[in-house]
Amino acid sequence: MTTQRRTPPSKDKLDAIRAIVGPKGVFEGNDAAPFLSEWRGRWPGEAALIVAPASTEEVAKIVKYCSDNDIAVTPQGGNTGLVGGQIPFGDEILLSLKRMRKIRAIEPLNNTMTVDAGVTLAEAQEAAKEAGRLFPLSIGSEGTCQIGGVISTNAGGVNVLRYGNTRDLVLGLEAVTPSGEIWHGLKRLRKDNTGYDLKQLLIGGEGTLGIVTGAVLKLFPLPAEKVTICAGLESADDAVKLLSLAQQRTGGMTSSFELMARLCIDLVLKHIPQTRDPLREQHPWYVLAEFSSGQKSGLRDTVEAMLGEALEQGLIVDAAIAENESHAHDFWRIRHSISEAINGEGLGARHDVSVATSDIPAFLEKADAAVLKIAPGARFVAFGHIGDGNVHYDIVGPEGSAPDVLEPVRPQIESAVYDIIDTFSGSISAEHGVGRHRRDTLAKRKNAVELDMMRAIKKALDPKGIMNPGKML
Amino acid sequence: MTTQRRTPPSKDKLDAIRAIVGPKGVFEGNDAAPFLSEWRGRWPGEAALIVAPASTEEVAKIVKYCSDNDIAVTPQGGNTGLVGGQIPFGDEILLSLKRMRKIRAIEPLNNTMTVDAGVTLAEAQEAAKEAGRLFPLSIGSEGTCQIGGVISTNAGGVNVLRYGNTRDLVLGLEAVTPSGEIWHGLKRLRKDNTGYDLKQLLIGGEGTLGIVTGAVLKLFPLPAEKVTICAGLESADDAVKLLSLAQQRTGGMTSSFELMARLCIDLVLKHIPQTRDPLREQHPWYVLAEFSSGQKSGLRDTVEAMLGEALEQGLIVDAAIAENESHAHDFWRIRHSISEAINGEGLGARHDVSVATSDIPAFLEKADAAVLKIAPGARFVAFGHIGDGNVHYDIVGPEGSAPDVLEPVRPQIESAVYDIIDTFSGSISAEHGVGRHRRDTLAKRKNAVELDMMRAIKKALDPKGIMNPGKML
Repeated sequence: MTTQRRTPPSKDKLDAIRAIVGPKGVFEGNDAAPFLSEWRGRWPGEAALIVAPASTEEVAKIVKYCSDNDIAVTPQGGNTGLVGGQIPFGDEILLSLKRMRKIRAIEPLNNTMTVDAGVTLAEAQEAAKEAGRLFPLSIGSEGTCQIGGVISTNAGGVNVLRYGNTRDLVLGLEAVTPSGEIWHGLKRLRKDNTGYDLKQLLIGGEGTLGIVTGAVLKLFPLPAEKVTICAGLESADDAVKLLSLAQQRTGGMTSSFELMARLCIDLVLKHIPQTRDPLREQHPWYVLAEFSSGQKSGLRDTVEAMLGEALEQGLIVDAAIAENESHAHDFWRIRHSISEAINGEGLGARHDVSVATSDIPAFLEKADAAVLKIAPGARFVAFGHIGDGNVHYDIVGPEGSAPDVLEPVRPQIESAVYDIIDTFSGSISAEHGVGRHRRDTLAKRKNAVELDMMRAIKKALDPKGIMNPGKML
Repeated sequence: MTTQRRTPPSKDKLDAIRAIVGPKGVFEGNDAAPFLSEWRGRWPGEAALIVAPASTEEVAKIVKYCSDNDIAVTPQGGNTGLVGGQIPFGDEILLSLKRMRKIRAIEPLNNTMTVDAGVTLAEAQEAAKEAGRLFPLSIGSEGTCQIGGVISTNAGGVNVLRYGNTRDLVLGLEAVTPSGEIWHGLKRLRKDNTGYDLKQLLIGGEGTLGIVTGAVLKLFPLPAEKVTICAGLESADDAVKLLSLAQQRTGGMTSSFELMARLCIDLVLKHIPQTRDPLREQHPWYVLAEFSSGQKSGLRDTVEAMLGEALEQGLIVDAAIAENESHAHDFWRIRHSISEAINGEGLGARHDVSVATSDIPAFLEKADAAVLKIAPGARFVAFGHIGDGNVHYDIVGPEGSAPDVLEPVRPQIESAVYDIIDTFSGSISAEHGVGRHRRDTLAKRKNAVELDMMRAIKKALDPKGIMNPGKML
């Protein structure tokens, strides 16, 4: 699928946009680079102009001008996206939200927080904590990614099992529509049945339907007790059963439940300094799980009893409960280092897929077999948020092979994996989104009724097609 | 706002629709009445034909035929809606989902259940329970209302605080589009970032964008322990603070948190047989709360300690913990009888509104004052799901007045209450929806950007305007 190029905007028009934000809001020359290169260097970009407005009103003025003059706009948050959705092709102006970073309000008694789109996720977490509350969303890029981007990509992360995706954590939005109007939708309500839930279109909309400028986020009580465990298992099937047991025995207290194939541990130990095997013996599979409770005591006993039951039922072979924060941190360090460890091993082939949780073992079995037919000796670094059915299904070449050994067959591998995902009615992009990267794949694989609905909505809300063209659909 | 009438469909065309469902699927004469009268008798309806297809394919055939022949369709579930959204005006065919009532699949390890739209909420709850899981949605009409209707109205109820609205409990949908295509969207995934989340438009869409024929619902572990309490308080403000304390001390275990003004209790004791005062003394306000946990023990101690703390802080005056199921049932009977008790007292003026939870006390104060100016001596039967900011703000006439004393000023009262709701950026329909009842109010009060977006979406997805015309927008 190709994207229609527009006539590049004239110098006069760009000057008119510059005038809206003033010199502080324009980024040129050396200052432009950080906006135009995606962090893994996959999608080098170009923009007609890079501006960072200081207020919602400035965003609206810019978009109104662009709408009137048929200029395309690519909104950008922290530029941490993994699918190139935030990188313009050349004729667009890039609109960064980085100068809009006020925490507008925190209301502990309503368990809500109202923030500008440019506030980083870490800043939002910190502000909530200072008010004695938890904002549970947590992803690797939290120090840099911004709330507006997090919302536009419906970010997931390690706490989805208990607290939901970003979609579940947003009560209200302020946004600028493709015609440059401000939508004042900053509701702080938990129930509102007065028409279509419009914010759901912008959440995960990848900036194709408007620009998020502010949001009301849900907060939660801070947990009083936390227990982190690492367990060794024989199979992914046992992991699915362990999850079910854990959820039944702890009620809603299972916050994270991460699966790792042994090869994940091996690669982390090989490539990441100061890491160590989490359990005494080696096991084919590992589960890293976290439980948290508002009650001050009793959680550890409950988790211990649950692990005892799991041992008896043969679901786990061994398990360790973190003795303190630093021990828990060691467990999490392994999990968080997997991506970097894979980079150390080679280019690999990566997939961010999801299936029904109970289908994970069958998916892994079928996908492994299909990949081995294409790339004999390939090794599987499967890991992920198993409680959400989300597997980061990554593949590296045979032991000792060249780092780029899989490159020639990568498209074939991807296609085979996605074919299997389709047979499970799974998702080819569980949390990373579509952006540039999966746009063609989506057009090919998404069901026709859905594609038609998406296109009809896009045309209805952005008839001139100026919002982030060439992304998603 | 008026609704354009269509040419009534000809006999030939109606016969063509009859032929799709066969004689078992057509309801005429005496059989028609239950579909056409809403249970409170407010919106008597008429339909060109009443059909109940037996399968998704039949639904699609009917809608395709209607689309091709410009015939309007009003979908109907259990006919328990409170705003007339399910009642046709006369030129539409009424399409009931009542013959589609299969539980298609239950997958405990994925915590999901796939059901036909015509399954009743109680049947869904029961099926989940048999599989050792909880489907937590619970509303007054659960014995009759159907999953399709529950989804199309985004039903709320008493467990929203912990488990969310219907919107949060749906993973996938199967639906028939306004052009008669089947949308196979029955995904069982907890993460899927491949484009706009289209199901969100049909959830709460009141049948104006398509007909839900099936759904994948989220299930949860069955709670192992449940504690129900009733507390007496001096003010609604204390209730908001008690909620915050309860949520902090019990983590995620607060399932329900209902506020009731004393007058609620008085009216229940007066009009409903075999009910008794829940606490020894009388208090201006009451909280009925339920806590549940997957842990087998410790919850009662935690709740007791929390109540001790609340007493010390002066947030509550007295409290009772239900000693057994039947005691808890007595507490809940009061709560569930309020609506009926109000009916016993008179016609009243009823509002289903929401504000930020922390704004509830200020809202009540301002609304009471405004109403008393219009109707001196009016009495307030405020109750509701305070944890969701949702107040059923009902008003009855002065003690001993005629049952219809408020009727002449009801529009004025409503308008005054909604004006105050607007100052709090609240919702004039927290859970009951728009339907026929609040369509004009919505058109007048909804912000213009949102109305434009809603209308653009409606036009894009239902260009012929055949889906449930005259409802919502």
